[in-house]
Amino acid sequence: MAVYTQLGPQQVEAVLVHYDVGQLVALKGIAEGVENSNFFVQTTQSRFILTLYESRVNPDDLPFFYALLKHLHHAGCKVPRFMADREGQWLQTVAGRPACLIEFLDGVSVTEPTAAQANSTGAALGQMHQALADFTLSRPNSLGVAAWRPLAMRCTAAGLDSIADGLSARIFAECDFLEAHWPTGLPVAAIHADLFPDNVLMLGDQVSGLIDFYFACTEIRAYDLAVTHSAWCFSNDGAVFDADVSAALLSGYADCVPLDATTREALPILLRGACLRFLLTRCYDWINTPANALVTRKDPLAFLRRLDFYSDAGQVENMLGQYS
Amino acid sequence: MAVYTQLGPQQVEAVLVHYDVGQLVALKGIAEGVENSNFFVQTTQSRFILTLYESRVNPDDLPFFYALLKHLHHAGCKVPRFMADREGQWLQTVAGRPACLIEFLDGVSVTEPTAAQANSTGAALGQMHQALADFTLSRPNSLGVAAWRPLAMRCTAAGLDSIADGLSARIFAECDFLEAHWPTGLPVAAIHADLFPDNVLMLGDQVSGLIDFYFACTEIRAYDLAVTHSAWCFSNDGAVFDADVSAALLSGYADCVPLDATTREALPILLRGACLRFLLTRCYDWINTPANALVTRKDPLAFLRRLDFYSDAGQVENMLGQYS
Repeated sequence: MAVYTQLGPQQVEAVLVHYDVGQLVALKGIAEGVENSNFFVQTTQSRFILTLYESRVNPDDLPFFYALLKHLHHAGCKVPRFMADREGQWLQTVAGRPACLIEFLDGVSVTEPTAAQANSTGAALGQMHQALADFTLSRPNSLGVAAWRPLAMRCTAAGLDSIADGLSARIFAECDFLEAHWPTGLPVAAIHADLFPDNVLMLGDQVSGLIDFYFACTEIRAYDLAVTHSAWCFSNDGAVFDADVSAALLSGYADCVPLDATTREALPILLRGACLRFLLTRCYDWINTPANALVTRKDPLAFLRRLDFYSDAGQVENMLGQYS
Repeated sequence: MAVYTQLGPQQVEAVLVHYDVGQLVALKGIAEGVENSNFFVQTTQSRFILTLYESRVNPDDLPFFYALLKHLHHAGCKVPRFMADREGQWLQTVAGRPACLIEFLDGVSVTEPTAAQANSTGAALGQMHQALADFTLSRPNSLGVAAWRPLAMRCTAAGLDSIADGLSARIFAECDFLEAHWPTGLPVAAIHADLFPDNVLMLGDQVSGLIDFYFACTEIRAYDLAVTHSAWCFSNDGAVFDADVSAALLSGYADCVPLDATTREALPILLRGACLRFLLTRCYDWINTPANALVTRKDPLAFLRRLDFYSDAGQVENMLGQYS
């Protein structure tokens, strides 16, 4: 739940005056996203999201995100553009914060994805990866394999064990395993890195938009598939794997970016890594968010259950069977 | 900041299927309102607000609000309609809560009203009062003069004094004064009772909508003008009175509903009552909201300062001078 900054219409009108987008006719704070303050902006001509970047987004990263979305848009991918004003400026200042006026895309985020929707998402992810093959800017992944052990240490063993008995030992053992087995030699490129159902807009069964690129970074490309798989193919609590959704997602992706032998071999490790990344950030937020805060804390164990699934070689073999 | 209930698109589509409003194309939680969960709903045909009533709104009151808005809409007032479905049902159930699909009105809430905007608001308030002269349903005002002393007692003297030295004595003395001097014999009717700038949508200088009728009740009609005056004619902190905005608001209202001698005489008392009502509810929320909660607590003293202003006979005489 966001909107940390209160905004009056005059402040928005002062931005819109730089664009040829008509007059402001509606302005509503949006209760989504946890990194930024987002506003729905309707003008006489069109609709936009106005995003104000709060402390968790580094303004120095914005040119990377802008270039990434522009590149994807030109390649025909369904992503929202950062709007440039008459002077070519896309980075504005609103209420003292860096701010961008962003195209509003129709579509809704599904909460219980169907196989057809997962298939369309896999294809959209694959198309995005194809389009990014010639994208040259880079941004380090601050939540990659090298960051997991330090993050676990910041949670502290006592903090982790307060969430579940033995969680600390399990997490540090997983760090040991993943650091030892993390794949090398796979294609590295710009990836979304956070393609949860929240961040995919759908009209019916078709993807109408990929949004929220603020974790985008340069990483092993197939790790993006691993993150997406872990986010889409389980019940919310991680307890139930949906084999149909999984098969549909993988097939949609593989139609665009074939899963070669090296990738298939690395995928079980990448899937475990994706789980550890979200397990750890959720543990960190859990430990550092007061239980009575209005922010809903996401259950870390939902990703421990996914990690259990992916750590079972038999399950993963079944899952990837058709690509072997 | 609201949206207490998370909602997926399937739950909204299950409501829309009862209406002839097209397919869902966008759904966003809105970070406004503190009583309800509100969602922006865009369909292929139109735009709506879907409101889920959380615990602070009594579902038994919804028929009153529905009838009030229907009456005002038929009278040509700019208010959002509760949409009735093909069966004539306007009350739905979503996520186990009473819910209504409400017309979306264009317009923005101004944070620093101009005199022209206050004039338009005064006129819209007056037109609403004219339109409600033949509205027969009633709803008691649970925050009227009889409720102030009990509310002060629930805050406790210690609680009030923790906000400002001597606040408790001041508030109970004001209760004594207002209970002794509260006017009788003035026209009583349905009123909005909460017409802050937040609850008025504007396009330029013109009112495009009056919204958020969930405090509407049966009360001395001129008390509504008093609430609106106290909400519009001061700097946010209550320290600075804006004589131009005040004159414009009163003149816009008086053009529709003349300020007769009885009303003019009662107005200073009603204005003090309006201040005490918001002072007390803000004190109550201040005392009962943890300082570290994400909800922004509104400063009670902003209405103590307004109360000081209205308690000064010279100031009020100046303000109302032209109507004497």
